Amino acid sequence: MSITHPYLMFLGDAPDQLAAKTAVGVAYWRRPWCLGQFRLAGCRADLGLPELGLEAAAAAGARTLLVGVANRGGIIAESWIAPLIQALELGMDLAAGLHQRLAEIPVVRDRAAALGRAVHDVRHPGRSFPIANGEKRPGKRLLAIGTDCSVGKMWTALALEQEMRARGFDAEFRATGQTGVMIAGSGVSIDAVVSDFVAGAVEALSPANRPDHWDIVEGQSSLLHPSYAGVTLGLVHGAQPDAMVLCHEPNRPHMRGLPGRPVPGFADTIAVHEAAARVTNPAAKVVGISLNTSALDAAAAERAIKAAEDSLGLPAGDPSRGGLGRVVDGLATL
Amino acid sequence: MSITHPYLMFLGDAPDQLAAKTAVGVAYWRRPWCLGQFRLAGCRADLGLPELGLEAAAAAGARTLLVGVANRGGIIAESWIAPLIQALELGMDLAAGLHQRLAEIPVVRDRAAALGRAVHDVRHPGRSFPIANGEKRPGKRLLAIGTDCSVGKMWTALALEQEMRARGFDAEFRATGQTGVMIAGSGVSIDAVVSDFVAGAVEALSPANRPDHWDIVEGQSSLLHPSYAGVTLGLVHGAQPDAMVLCHEPNRPHMRGLPGRPVPGFADTIAVHEAAARVTNPAAKVVGISLNTSALDAAAAERAIKAAEDSLGLPAGDPSRGGLGRVVDGLATL
Repeated sequence: MSITHPYLMFLGDAPDQLAAKTAVGVAYWRRPWCLGQFRLAGCRADLGLPELGLEAAAAAGARTLLVGVANRGGIIAESWIAPLIQALELGMDLAAGLHQRLAEIPVVRDRAAALGRAVHDVRHPGRSFPIANGEKRPGKRLLAIGTDCSVGKMWTALALEQEMRARGFDAEFRATGQTGVMIAGSGVSIDAVVSDFVAGAVEALSPANRPDHWDIVEGQSSLLHPSYAGVTLGLVHGAQPDAMVLCHEPNRPHMRGLPGRPVPGFADTIAVHEAAARVTNPAAKVVGISLNTSALDAAAAERAIKAAEDSLGLPAGDPSRGGLGRVVDGLATL
Repeated sequence: MSITHPYLMFLGDAPDQLAAKTAVGVAYWRRPWCLGQFRLAGCRADLGLPELGLEAAAAAGARTLLVGVANRGGIIAESWIAPLIQALELGMDLAAGLHQRLAEIPVVRDRAAALGRAVHDVRHPGRSFPIANGEKRPGKRLLAIGTDCSVGKMWTALALEQEMRARGFDAEFRATGQTGVMIAGSGVSIDAVVSDFVAGAVEALSPANRPDHWDIVEGQSSLLHPSYAGVTLGLVHGAQPDAMVLCHEPNRPHMRGLPGRPVPGFADTIAVHEAAARVTNPAAKVVGISLNTSALDAAAAERAIKAAEDSLGLPAGDPSRGGLGRVVDGLATL
């Protein structure tokens, strides 16, 4: 799956900014790819991009209309169909990360086929994958891991890619979730892959490379999350990480979706991920901590970062507050 | 998925006994459900069941024609179509565990629909599953785990069910692979489930039960197998086992499908499975060893069983050679 940019960001009638969080991520990390935003009446999300109609976007060179909004239930609203069709007719491909597939809507599918346009349903892998062989591949790999779901693994991986490139590393983000795929323009939503093929899909996503090339692989969930840990284990085995960065959000009352289940501690999380990763890369180790301190004030955030460093003897930071420079410092020697 | 027995076992033109290993498993473990076998010209597999034509089987009450044979590639042979259609017309459902779905063959699908017959493609889950919640469910659960793939986890689980029932336990085999599903008449091929839903599928497969009821859950692969460990972890978390029995085949040159990768030892395998299982059941422990000694002579088998017991301090046995009675001895106190 390879999505062509530049994008016109379709926000539909998103009731708030959270409903457009896919679009927010793409606009933040790939601003130069985003020509503008296209909103329907009543839309309350705003990416701060120029408002652009479909015809103006096509004239400006937009290649893909990116549906960056999620309804409750992940359904495609009736009111979206006409603009989707018009985008196809104006020469754009379509991309969406919803549960419901664009390609399941007969009028969209048929019009796209007739016009020769691509329809990317990034949540649904459109291909099959080989079984993983576990053989170590050349090139270096960093994997974002976490104490829980939704603690900032994608954000961390993208911040690491950005910082590493700024320092001259040959680094490349590898997407494993739908927002990441839209940001990278390629990748695979790993939690939608049939379980037998998860590790193999990650091997395919991050193939053999130059010895000094770094793939920065987006992580998913946690090995200690009872709902999704199997996804994580296939990802860890397939990624064969040389380095892992542990992502965490302080002060969560419980693991995501599981009231009453406390978030595991750093030491337990590091131990289980290092042991698992060493099945396919004996040198794998956690090299830093990435905290999501968005719920803390500046002083509390600084204390949390310092506490993590002191307790683990590893560099820590927040990608959105001071950055992960200290984590990247250590990568040059790996 | 619930498959109605009695079965007529369809062996097609299987070139040898191995090609019919699904049928062999069903005929061994569920002999009373198997009215007879139906073979095409050239078939070299033999279950030792009465030869029964389609009409005679229908007259004798067969409810399902069970395709217990696998071609290379898991494809349905052209020569099988006519007997499959005839079975539908005689009132039988169809069940198969092939990669290719019976329901993908238009003439089979349409005839079955017109006649109101069920077509069970047991390798393909025909339903969706909830996300696992990790909450401990009432009832007891035993899970077969292993040092590798194909070391006898299904055989071990069925032998344990048989021995436990003989001793008055309320025990029930829960199938997680295609042969197991045909033996149980229900279950789910867990490696074909989308990775996000594996643990949830196992929670659904082994629901809350009476406090003294034992579900004996068929295992899959190993947490240390780099190709499939993600499947295993979802299964371990979803099964919430109170007890695990470790299955092993001595003298394997390497892990299945991975030349050069040695089979992990007992201690490492036990440690990683116990740690994983304790995420959803803090009391989880390995309570015994099941060896597949089919490649050894009687004296060597006895030595291997004794050596496993001595090194681990756990009861051991071979389900097909002396049985697992000593393992079951310990379950009464759990």
